[in-house]
Amino acid sequence: MKSIVQRHSSNPIITPNMVKPTQGDFKVDGVFNAGVTRFNDETILLLRVAESVITENEDIVGVPVFVKEDEHYQLQVVYYDKRRDSKVYDFSDSRTIRRRSDHKVVHLTSISHFRLARSKNGIDFHIEDRSFLVPESQYETWGIEDPRITKIDNSFYITYSAVSEYGVATAMIKTDDFKDYERLGIIFVPENKDVSIFPEKINGYYYAYHRPVPKEIGNANIWVSKSKDLINWSQHEHLLSVSEDGWENGRIGGGGPSVKTEKGWLHIYHAADKNDCYCLGAILTDIDNPGRIIAKTQYPIMIPEASYEKDGFFGNVVFTCGILLEEDLVKIYYGASDEVIGLAEVLLKDIYEVLEK
Amino acid sequence: MKSIVQRHSSNPIITPNMVKPTQGDFKVDGVFNAGVTRFNDETILLLRVAESVITENEDIVGVPVFVKEDEHYQLQVVYYDKRRDSKVYDFSDSRTIRRRSDHKVVHLTSISHFRLARSKNGIDFHIEDRSFLVPESQYETWGIEDPRITKIDNSFYITYSAVSEYGVATAMIKTDDFKDYERLGIIFVPENKDVSIFPEKINGYYYAYHRPVPKEIGNANIWVSKSKDLINWSQHEHLLSVSEDGWENGRIGGGGPSVKTEKGWLHIYHAADKNDCYCLGAILTDIDNPGRIIAKTQYPIMIPEASYEKDGFFGNVVFTCGILLEEDLVKIYYGASDEVIGLAEVLLKDIYEVLEK
Repeated sequence: MKSIVQRHSSNPIITPNMVKPTQGDFKVDGVFNAGVTRFNDETILLLRVAESVITENEDIVGVPVFVKEDEHYQLQVVYYDKRRDSKVYDFSDSRTIRRRSDHKVVHLTSISHFRLARSKNGIDFHIEDRSFLVPESQYETWGIEDPRITKIDNSFYITYSAVSEYGVATAMIKTDDFKDYERLGIIFVPENKDVSIFPEKINGYYYAYHRPVPKEIGNANIWVSKSKDLINWSQHEHLLSVSEDGWENGRIGGGGPSVKTEKGWLHIYHAADKNDCYCLGAILTDIDNPGRIIAKTQYPIMIPEASYEKDGFFGNVVFTCGILLEEDLVKIYYGASDEVIGLAEVLLKDIYEVLEK
Repeated sequence: MKSIVQRHSSNPIITPNMVKPTQGDFKVDGVFNAGVTRFNDETILLLRVAESVITENEDIVGVPVFVKEDEHYQLQVVYYDKRRDSKVYDFSDSRTIRRRSDHKVVHLTSISHFRLARSKNGIDFHIEDRSFLVPESQYETWGIEDPRITKIDNSFYITYSAVSEYGVATAMIKTDDFKDYERLGIIFVPENKDVSIFPEKINGYYYAYHRPVPKEIGNANIWVSKSKDLINWSQHEHLLSVSEDGWENGRIGGGGPSVKTEKGWLHIYHAADKNDCYCLGAILTDIDNPGRIIAKTQYPIMIPEASYEKDGFFGNVVFTCGILLEEDLVKIYYGASDEVIGLAEVLLKDIYEVLEK
């Protein structure tokens, strides 16, 4: 297996040292999984910025979490001592703290918010120091993650993972100018993420792909749903399953919004095997029905190969929340190793070639 | 802890031997978790009937499953041999077969469908031999479970768990006469069950309680959502969490549709502790906002005490999918031990007494 995409020579195009931490005792662990769109002749990336607490002693873990105080959510830090707390908690995954008794994730070691980045050429980005969106509700106390942007008419709808003790839900905001925004609430309840909305109505309905994660029965599969108004979703149908073996036998999930081609809707999704190696694949769906898959890649179009994709905060990951189709070129903005952002390009005709009916 | 309800002297009022199996080589393991309503001066119970395959040898397990053939779903039986298959599968829970490698439930040992029962007095029921509803889609190949009936105007909306390899989702049908019905599809995606719909619009919205089960983060809690049309649901909010300890520290889930009282909406829910002992509790919510809890029982109003509640197909379970409020009396129809149906009664004033603000 080998990637069919071309990595940009400037890769990684965005790295943590380009992002100013939100406060002095925080460090930026990762800037990755960005939503992408075009606005005012610029490429906009909405960056997921993950930060953690700087501690003097590596046995001490500071957990950043938002807590409600006086009707507002404030960032606080809770400290764990690995030497003292290892009997009760499992610190072996750098991303999470699990309770040993039931293996539940009880804390994340970093917390994410969203930052805007703008570019004229799609490669060199100016990153704002100010946050664009931070946690503001009981469903976001552990952070907000993996934004995906869909432009509909003159508005941008941004779906993202809202993470808290209640689980991982999907929330949505709307903005017309990337300055102000309106919160539209939870659109999919836990556990559900990887939500991407189609950019236009198809036969009277908006469509969304989403990825519920059932606990007792069933796998992390992709579903498709319909809506008249982007808020109320129904007609839920299963779309694509993890496979029993191979590169997508662990979990799969949608990428950024599908793009319209002359052969159908093209969607780049991610898949992980049981070893948590994340690759990218593609599906082509009926132009009149995004719930009908016409063709699918048998092998990944992109696998972790570059050093920044194989090593990092969480290695062996390529993961996309947004692509741009410019004439016959697909530009894939992707997170690598949960740490940096890269750009990979592939000709539409090269994807068509590996799509199997 | 002691139940405050009165069990009816005829309990259990419905038992498996009163139900005709759907085919000769099947036996009825349980008739339980029934939806209830009033129709044409009769009490209607929509029974969950769980059947399994009769085998000559106790080492052989026959798994009933619906398979699509020629556009229709047909019941088939897959056989497992415990002696041969125990290395790969775990047969220790009588209700499920789990794959040892990932602890996933890969089969249920029984399959459920719905049967109608009618009664003039609410105690002596005539049970139809014919099935009212059987699995008919890819989301129901492992069965349909736990119906809840809400009467709105002159129609009855029935929500139920649709179980398949894709997980446990909630589907809905509508009937006006308990003869014909219309399928309305999946209204909540996996893993989500215990869905009950309120019997009227409140400030322009229908309300539903539901119980998503997240995998990685969060517990099996009750959520509340709104809808203009009963099909499209939004404004999802968390309602009630499992508690850290006590009788409801395992999972909680809604019961039948809430009933209107002069003090607010009364809802009887179930809660299980970490040992899977299922009890019933109650909440009272704002008459203008079912998302706002006014009062809650600190202790269960009903715990497994009778022999048929403590011993059975899956013992130590009382579980309700429907109650009737007749003047000042709450009639709780409930499944006991996943095997039989009982009736328990409690005066509204006695529930008020144990509801704490």
